[in-house]
Amino acid sequence: MNEKTTFEKIEEPSITVVPGIRAAAVNCGLKKKKSDLALVCSESEAAAAGVFTRNRVQAAPVKLCRETIGSPVRALVVNSGKIAAGIKGAAAALSGDIEAGHRAACAIMTTDRATKEVAYRSYCGGRPFHLAGMAKGSGMICPDMATMLAFLYTDLAIPRPLLQELLQEAVDRSFNLITIDGDTSTNDTVLLMANGAAGLPEVEAGDGLCRTFAEMLEQACFELAYQIVSDGEGVTKVITLELQGAPDRAAARTLARAVLNSPLVKTAFYGEDANWGRILAALGYAGVEFDPDRVDIYLGPLQVASQGGAVAFRESEARSILKKREITVRVELNSGNCSLTAWGTDLSHDYISINSSYRS
Amino acid sequence: MNEKTTFEKIEEPSITVVPGIRAAAVNCGLKKKKSDLALVCSESEAAAAGVFTRNRVQAAPVKLCRETIGSPVRALVVNSGKIAAGIKGAAAALSGDIEAGHRAACAIMTTDRATKEVAYRSYCGGRPFHLAGMAKGSGMICPDMATMLAFLYTDLAIPRPLLQELLQEAVDRSFNLITIDGDTSTNDTVLLMANGAAGLPEVEAGDGLCRTFAEMLEQACFELAYQIVSDGEGVTKVITLELQGAPDRAAARTLARAVLNSPLVKTAFYGEDANWGRILAALGYAGVEFDPDRVDIYLGPLQVASQGGAVAFRESEARSILKKREITVRVELNSGNCSLTAWGTDLSHDYISINSSYRS
Repeated sequence: MNEKTTFEKIEEPSITVVPGIRAAAVNCGLKKKKSDLALVCSESEAAAAGVFTRNRVQAAPVKLCRETIGSPVRALVVNSGKIAAGIKGAAAALSGDIEAGHRAACAIMTTDRATKEVAYRSYCGGRPFHLAGMAKGSGMICPDMATMLAFLYTDLAIPRPLLQELLQEAVDRSFNLITIDGDTSTNDTVLLMANGAAGLPEVEAGDGLCRTFAEMLEQACFELAYQIVSDGEGVTKVITLELQGAPDRAAARTLARAVLNSPLVKTAFYGEDANWGRILAALGYAGVEFDPDRVDIYLGPLQVASQGGAVAFRESEARSILKKREITVRVELNSGNCSLTAWGTDLSHDYISINSSYRS
Repeated sequence: MNEKTTFEKIEEPSITVVPGIRAAAVNCGLKKKKSDLALVCSESEAAAAGVFTRNRVQAAPVKLCRETIGSPVRALVVNSGKIAAGIKGAAAALSGDIEAGHRAACAIMTTDRATKEVAYRSYCGGRPFHLAGMAKGSGMICPDMATMLAFLYTDLAIPRPLLQELLQEAVDRSFNLITIDGDTSTNDTVLLMANGAAGLPEVEAGDGLCRTFAEMLEQACFELAYQIVSDGEGVTKVITLELQGAPDRAAARTLARAVLNSPLVKTAFYGEDANWGRILAALGYAGVEFDPDRVDIYLGPLQVASQGGAVAFRESEARSILKKREITVRVELNSGNCSLTAWGTDLSHDYISINSSYRS
């Protein structure tokens, strides 16, 4: 087992793979048929960390979360209202089964077409520990999060300040690098709870266990983020943008956002056109210092622009790359040493249909 | 005649209403049928001012313009190449007729569906002077300009530094406050030429003539900007956003852009839904300090949100406002004394069709 594979992916992910975590989902009457309330309980008190929307307008549940998260938590209720009867019913149905976790992941869905779950296992001195999470979100997705909720559980014992630090770092490298439409919702929340049920010594900043967990956490956040992007409203293409040679991380983020939020870039991918000019133009108006004449652009392995200008390439090769649902774009700025990967989508007729037919 | 109406609009606008300005349009073979090269000449040398794209990637014509604009200019050639034979043909066809101006305005069109022209006349000591302009642009329109070109002529004598200052100010209050898709092109250019043919004394900063001209210029730029927005790709609604009570002008601009570039706000207008929540959310993620609980929102005269929350209004009244092609949205932030008006559009299926079917 090398440094890079210190944990394993659990084939059937569910938050209930974490010992001490039980889940339930009920219908409390807010939606006609499907379950609309999820309850997740930790048998023992769990330390909690949270990262919330940076939108200046914050929804009531976000405000409540911010206030309560400083103390250890036992239960998590997710729905579109807070109905006492529903909570009682859910409490009676709590179960540690894999299926109960799936049902909870299903109950938190709104316009999502698929549940979003992830789970990992690792070992410390032969003893197993876990990280599992579920998420929802499909529209209004932007760097710095969006109408997206993600809930992660681990059975490690991690003091709250360290938990918060690890979560913030993982979110910055995952959820904060995805965008569907550039809109940031008023509800975004990522919570991470640590209940210590694995019976391992408390994690300390910088120790081996901490490093392994940090890696698991970043990977889990990334997988949930990718599932959200992939399930985005009207999405027909998922774009992985590898931005290389940027002067610094802030510049790289700004450039990546400009490209992935550009309606012209997004419609070009929807139309399967190798329009590197739109990518270059979006980089240009991002407001970051770089030399356009040093920019190389690749679609998958195919170079489509060199030193800011056209380069000959086979149309047929570009077409076969652009036909796929998952497309990797590599932009080599040659203006520094910072690299960053971000994820976005195309902009389709379906996006317009879904968001223009919505009634407030 | 009061202070506000010191100039009159010329019914049939054309750049050739400015004495000493002749225009011609020819087909030089770049397009199949329509004229594709416009030539505009000033009989005498004209001082020239220019405002260019802030995109870091700049097209060759922009670079050329920047270099030559410091010296007085005589001729302006606009087309999608620079074909010597075409220029010769156009030079032979130069005319001061109204029709010649129209033909030039037609020759600079790309995906535009209509020509964009404006002209004003005013008097100083009984002597007439003029300002006329033409523009093109329909996609990739954003504050700080876009694939848009605008050319303005006046027969006043204005020294170049003052001309540049007046143009920059007028552009900031017009072209830089319109957005269609948030993309900023690499070609944006607004040029203003002053040939002195009116025979009036040279304009001095702050004198009465200067004030009148500044007002004309701002109005002319605004009208051309509005024509561009209105003719935008796939546009079915033109949104006038009146943002009031902002802490300062920079904040107001940032907030206006966030609202007018939000795909969710834009699709709501396309769907004719009074979704003030999306407007509030866009304000919230703009990154500007304000108190969401003080925000009032109006559609035309109809209040739809009060102090950041819902307010009862007649659905039928909202529907009749949202049905129209031109919609005014007033956002009262109640967080300061700065007001600003900006213009945007909806986001429609046609926008996606036009921009995804384009082949680079």
